[in-house]
Amino acid sequence: MRYLTAGESHGPQLTTIIEGVPAGLPLVADDINEELARRQKGHGRGRRMQIEKDQVQIVSGVRHGVTLGSPITLVVENKDFTHWTKIMGAEPLEDENAEVKRVISRPRPGHADLNGAIKYNHRDMRNVLERSSARETTVRVAAGAVAKKVLKELGVEVGGHVLELGGVVAENTTYESLDELREKTEISPVRCLDKNVEKTMMEAIDTAKENGDSIGGVVEVIVEGMPVGVGSYTHYDNKLDAKLAAAIMSINAFKGAEIGIGFEAARRPGSEVHDEIVWDIERGYTRRTNNAGGFEGGMTTGMPIVVRGVMKPIPTLYKPLNSVDIETKEVFAASIERSDSCAVPAASVVAESVVAWELASALVNQFGQDNMDVIKKNIVQHQERARVF
Amino acid sequence: MRYLTAGESHGPQLTTIIEGVPAGLPLVADDINEELARRQKGHGRGRRMQIEKDQVQIVSGVRHGVTLGSPITLVVENKDFTHWTKIMGAEPLEDENAEVKRVISRPRPGHADLNGAIKYNHRDMRNVLERSSARETTVRVAAGAVAKKVLKELGVEVGGHVLELGGVVAENTTYESLDELREKTEISPVRCLDKNVEKTMMEAIDTAKENGDSIGGVVEVIVEGMPVGVGSYTHYDNKLDAKLAAAIMSINAFKGAEIGIGFEAARRPGSEVHDEIVWDIERGYTRRTNNAGGFEGGMTTGMPIVVRGVMKPIPTLYKPLNSVDIETKEVFAASIERSDSCAVPAASVVAESVVAWELASALVNQFGQDNMDVIKKNIVQHQERARVF
Amino acid sequence: MRYLTAGESHGPQLTTIIEGVPAGLPLVADDINEELARRQKGHGRGRRMQIEKDQVQIVSGVRHGVTLGSPITLVVENKDFTHWTKIMGAEPLEDENAEVKRVISRPRPGHADLNGAIKYNHRDMRNVLERSSARETTVRVAAGAVAKKVLKELGVEVGGHVLELGGVVAENTTYESLDELREKTEISPVRCLDKNVEKTMMEAIDTAKENGDSIGGVVEVIVEGMPVGVGSYTHYDNKLDAKLAAAIMSINAFKGAEIGIGFEAARRPGSEVHDEIVWDIERGYTRRTNNAGGFEGGMTTGMPIVVRGVMKPIPTLYKPLNSVDIETKEVFAASIERSDSCAVPAASVVAESVVAWELASALVNQFGQDNMDVIKKNIVQHQERARVF
Amino acid sequence: MRYLTAGESHGPQLTTIIEGVPAGLPLVADDINEELARRQKGHGRGRRMQIEKDQVQIVSGVRHGVTLGSPITLVVENKDFTHWTKIMGAEPLEDENAEVKRVISRPRPGHADLNGAIKYNHRDMRNVLERSSARETTVRVAAGAVAKKVLKELGVEVGGHVLELGGVVAENTTYESLDELREKTEISPVRCLDKNVEKTMMEAIDTAKENGDSIGGVVEVIVEGMPVGVGSYTHYDNKLDAKLAAAIMSINAFKGAEIGIGFEAARRPGSEVHDEIVWDIERGYTRRTNNAGGFEGGMTTGMPIVVRGVMKPIPTLYKPLNSVDIETKEVFAASIERSDSCAVPAASVVAESVVAWELASALVNQFGQDNMDVIKKNIVQHQERARVF
Repeated sequence: MRYLTAGESHGPQLTTIIEGVPAGLPLVADDINEELARRQKGHGRGRRMQIEKDQVQIVSGVRHGVTLGSPITLVVENKDFTHWTKIMGAEPLEDENAEVKRVISRPRPGHADLNGAIKYNHRDMRNVLERSSARETTVRVAAGAVAKKVLKELGVEVGGHVLELGGVVAENTTYESLDELREKTEISPVRCLDKNVEKTMMEAIDTAKENGDSIGGVVEVIVEGMPVGVGSYTHYDNKLDAKLAAAIMSINAFKGAEIGIGFEAARRPGSEVHDEIVWDIERGYTRRTNNAGGFEGGMTTGMPIVVRGVMKPIPTLYKPLNSVDIETKEVFAASIERSDSCAVPAASVVAESVVAWELASALVNQFGQDNMDVIKKNIVQHQERARVF
Repeated sequence: MRYLTAGESHGPQLTTIIEGVPAGLPLVADDINEELARRQKGHGRGRRMQIEKDQVQIVSGVRHGVTLGSPITLVVENKDFTHWTKIMGAEPLEDENAEVKRVISRPRPGHADLNGAIKYNHRDMRNVLERSSARETTVRVAAGAVAKKVLKELGVEVGGHVLELGGVVAENTTYESLDELREKTEISPVRCLDKNVEKTMMEAIDTAKENGDSIGGVVEVIVEGMPVGVGSYTHYDNKLDAKLAAAIMSINAFKGAEIGIGFEAARRPGSEVHDEIVWDIERGYTRRTNNAGGFEGGMTTGMPIVVRGVMKPIPTLYKPLNSVDIETKEVFAASIERSDSCAVPAASVVAESVVAWELASALVNQFGQDNMDVIKKNIVQHQERARVF
Repeated sequence: MRYLTAGESHGPQLTTIIEGVPAGLPLVADDINEELARRQKGHGRGRRMQIEKDQVQIVSGVRHGVTLGSPITLVVENKDFTHWTKIMGAEPLEDENAEVKRVISRPRPGHADLNGAIKYNHRDMRNVLERSSARETTVRVAAGAVAKKVLKELGVEVGGHVLELGGVVAENTTYESLDELREKTEISPVRCLDKNVEKTMMEAIDTAKENGDSIGGVVEVIVEGMPVGVGSYTHYDNKLDAKLAAAIMSINAFKGAEIGIGFEAARRPGSEVHDEIVWDIERGYTRRTNNAGGFEGGMTTGMPIVVRGVMKPIPTLYKPLNSVDIETKEVFAASIERSDSCAVPAASVVAESVVAWELASALVNQFGQDNMDVIKKNIVQHQERARVF
Repeated sequence: MRYLTAGESHGPQLTTIIEGVPAGLPLVADDINEELARRQKGHGRGRRMQIEKDQVQIVSGVRHGVTLGSPITLVVENKDFTHWTKIMGAEPLEDENAEVKRVISRPRPGHADLNGAIKYNHRDMRNVLERSSARETTVRVAAGAVAKKVLKELGVEVGGHVLELGGVVAENTTYESLDELREKTEISPVRCLDKNVEKTMMEAIDTAKENGDSIGGVVEVIVEGMPVGVGSYTHYDNKLDAKLAAAIMSINAFKGAEIGIGFEAARRPGSEVHDEIVWDIERGYTRRTNNAGGFEGGMTTGMPIVVRGVMKPIPTLYKPLNSVDIETKEVFAASIERSDSCAVPAASVVAESVVAWELASALVNQFGQDNMDVIKKNIVQHQERARVF
């Protein structure tokens, strides 16, 4: 499974082509729309989240609600585009001397603006920010929704939540089941499991907004039901935990990724880190604890996968930072595009999506690729072999 | 640039083939041997580090001390192999009924043993651990040494150090230059910049050893001299910081990766995170701070790259953890291969190597691929364009 | 540069996302529409070519007529889809028990129908043929049009013509320049350079049609202006001629590919095959002949690239071949979708497109990737170095 | 499955690392040595084939005669190297001013010499020809031997023969079984099935040799036992026939590739090209003929795979062609390395190898990757499903 995404933030549409999804997967637009809606929720989102209710169109690869095995095209229109046709149109300006509006010559600290402009030789940095915008995560969530559907059919479930937000840390994050986790976080405006800190988190967002500032946070993704032995230790680039790290770090504004106890592993002795192995006839091999977060040797252990990522505060601030105008080389206080003051709850949905993608892709590759029936059967056989191994 | 590594821990040799190194790079065995020696140092290493002084042979791709542009083969012999020919030989046992010695049916918690055995259907888990062993990092360091040579020729320097070890945190980690950092860490038995905690770190290692336990830590890699605009925001899998995260996470026993201030970004407001942009005629665009660790939008900013990774304690303990014998399904206290009690200083060299690889590879891809002269010239032109952009 | 294509033959649209096109390339829809129109011409095309005049929409990656460096999305609507919404819709049938129309249980010899149905476990082979249809080549031509634009900017020109058709062989295929070749073939209903056989070729098509039969042919692509040294001998999968062979063979119904004198090389002694090398100060190194078709050692020689491919007759015949109904296992005479009796002239446009893609991609990879200005400058420097080498 | 090869023609050794071979495959050096010996046979080979009897060493990935699932390293020493240490050594010359011997400043027509020298900026073209030499095919044959072993275990057999040589065409090329084909060709000095033309072929080689000339030819590879539905029509780069074309074209000196009736398809009407489909309970779906050479829609049909390639005459001639000295720019008659006058019989072994690689790789990818037991079982299930589909 592989996919390409495309689309500018104020262009006509976002598109993704997903290649390699097995045939025989039930898939309807609402499977994807639900996830798109989850991405648009969250306390502290800006105006755009209200004006655009993202809706996907499936324009290839699915027939009568079932995947064909051929590439799947998903389209999400930017309803805003009607106001931007002159600024973002693909066709040349009729009047070559017309002044392009909304030209950006002032790079914002923390954004791709300046590096991208130098790289691609753009004097108008709108040419960069239209693509580097987190708007792109819309179709990564769409692709992730397809991946989640694959996983669900194969008995694998995904959940996510916000662990930390602007310095406020969730403390009671236990849950009985992924179902419970999903229910609780779905009704929380900050996707937090800990009812007690939820309000403090929302206040942190409001305070940041009042200050013209922004805040980041830590999100966690949990995946249950993955079979043992997915990924491999045999070559460094076959390690599935490494792929997850890349996926997490590739989300806009993410600066770190960890698995299991992660950085905490530097502070504990080995005897309090490694997970003891047990076996019983019903469940086969399991671990007494899950400090490894579901991975040993770059492979799944069969225990829940636990991945965390950190998102930096959104770099577009009303409280400006200094920068330099590339035309005049003069210092200015960085310009502002419309912006959220905190996108961490949404980012937790994006994190679920990119993790789901890597796992679904790894499962499909390992267990048969072509059609869901065969993959399901192969996984059952594998699980059975693993149980009595 | 791409490479494959091969070799079992007690097999005859480790090998790597590196494809895509430009022609015209000066390269001798000692460039690589120096890095191999650095990897073998460090307080707390076990017996093997003493018995095997790794030496590389360059058996293709280099002629008269200069790369040809054709694939480079590096070989590091396992001197130990003479004692292991019967156990690890490639040829079938002469007597088919002969009992294989050193069969391992007891998976060690924290290792690839069990997952790997189930995946590849091995009853003797030696078939797993011989490859999943961190011995493999020897040739990753070798490949990294070639990458460092490429970087050096292109004006890019790499350094690394240990930030944290078994809960002991380095505090004074400032340095004037990468040269100073390298000098200081090279003479430190724990590769630590902070003279004051060095001794405490060594004691932590010794204590762990006495307890039959092990400890992990945090390492940091710094890279100076990278041009702006390497990597890209245009597609998620073009982001260079994501590739670094994968590279770090793919090192044996690593459980997390972060860039710049990393997880700290969850605790600070945006106004204290993003790096203000300044410009002057000599240096072009730079940043007042470097919280972003050299990356915005998945691209280099031209500021130093700062990457950290966390290594869990080595999972082979003398203080045993419970596990299950796969033949009897009975509980046992996990078996012990010879082991170090702390490999974090060595891991910091491995981290330098894998980071160097990704950066060299990205530079070569972007600036011309074929021969060092052209790449150098292209980078100079790029830097000049960037300066006055 | 890489791209994915998607879309079913009677689905709503064909889509391609093209990633890695450098920034700064002038590109408008008409650049692509022209090529789409060329693909739809040719004596012997069926009804569909008349009803659908393909038109592209550029919905990402281009702004004001210039590429941004971000992924380019091209959409070509299937105007036919309005009549097929019930049969090809993505949404589930409202009435689950409704009979799906146009179900295909009878695989056609020469098509992907049967192999694809078994692979993906489809009882309705429409699920296969909708994607395996040559309709997909529409967006490969669209991607090729972008590649041609890249090449043109870099001084590289592409032409194509039909060499053989249903056993009729063009004899006089000399041309003064690619411009002349393009002019002549553009007005030929069979894209043939040889005026004398053109009529015979058309008659062969007509005769085949009358007989309910179909015919194939041989097409040739010529590319002038490629710099020397693109591709590489250093590793087998770096060879550019091998990539061209794959590209040609990947076109629907193609069964062979050759470069330069191709299979003729089996019949001549070496002394009449290899091209003597000459040098003069103006043009640098050239060859006295071009039997190698522009490639030695998997690299360009700087001489014109000459690639040929053979297309088998379209496998959908009115004159039926026997096959087996997969539901009844009974023999039947193979069913007919609407069809052309000869698509070789169109296939010659497709062949140009896929060759252009591989060459543009190789050039961009080797000479700088990011923006057209830098690539152009790097190629000029390379050409200058090559001239006086 | 993927592999890298390395090694210069007169360097110390050739090496390949093969990654992704499933665990549990029986493999001994002799499996590979047999194929290496086959590559060295053939009427018309030069001196080197006599002096070097290639022998492989397996130095990783195999234990006690069975693959581990970890990367396999194969080494073939160049026994010649002892005489070339000064010329080809990796270490810098002790005396920097020492004149390097055997410097080549005269590019040979038909070789990579000139293009490669310009590309990699080598003034001594030995730096090119040492790698571009067909000596590299030794390890491609070694990798192919591993692939053949995989195929054999999965019930797939490979054969190859010479169809045409210097204009002499084999006419009676029928065979009852691949076993018969292999027996007959193995004892033929030109690997030809047609006893009647064998002698004429040998004479053609002798005549070429006497004339200081060389000849090429056409080889054919046949593969029986491949299951239906390997490869895919869903995306152009998933087509397995296209991968075979690339593999064939990537062999040194190959200029064309065709599948089934290949270029002949341009001369026959569709009704005489497409293979009628039949079904019976024992064999499932088969075809009455096999003009498609085992491929429809980029996928296997389950019929024998038939692939042909054309090799140009070896470009190193005693009868010299004109070229230009790059130092003086003066015309000269091209220099001679030691050479065979015909390598087509050997190339037929190489062709088998590269085809075997692509097919084994595709099978392993599709049917389970990890261990041979699971793959075998999955293929049996697939075949059974296909039979009654």
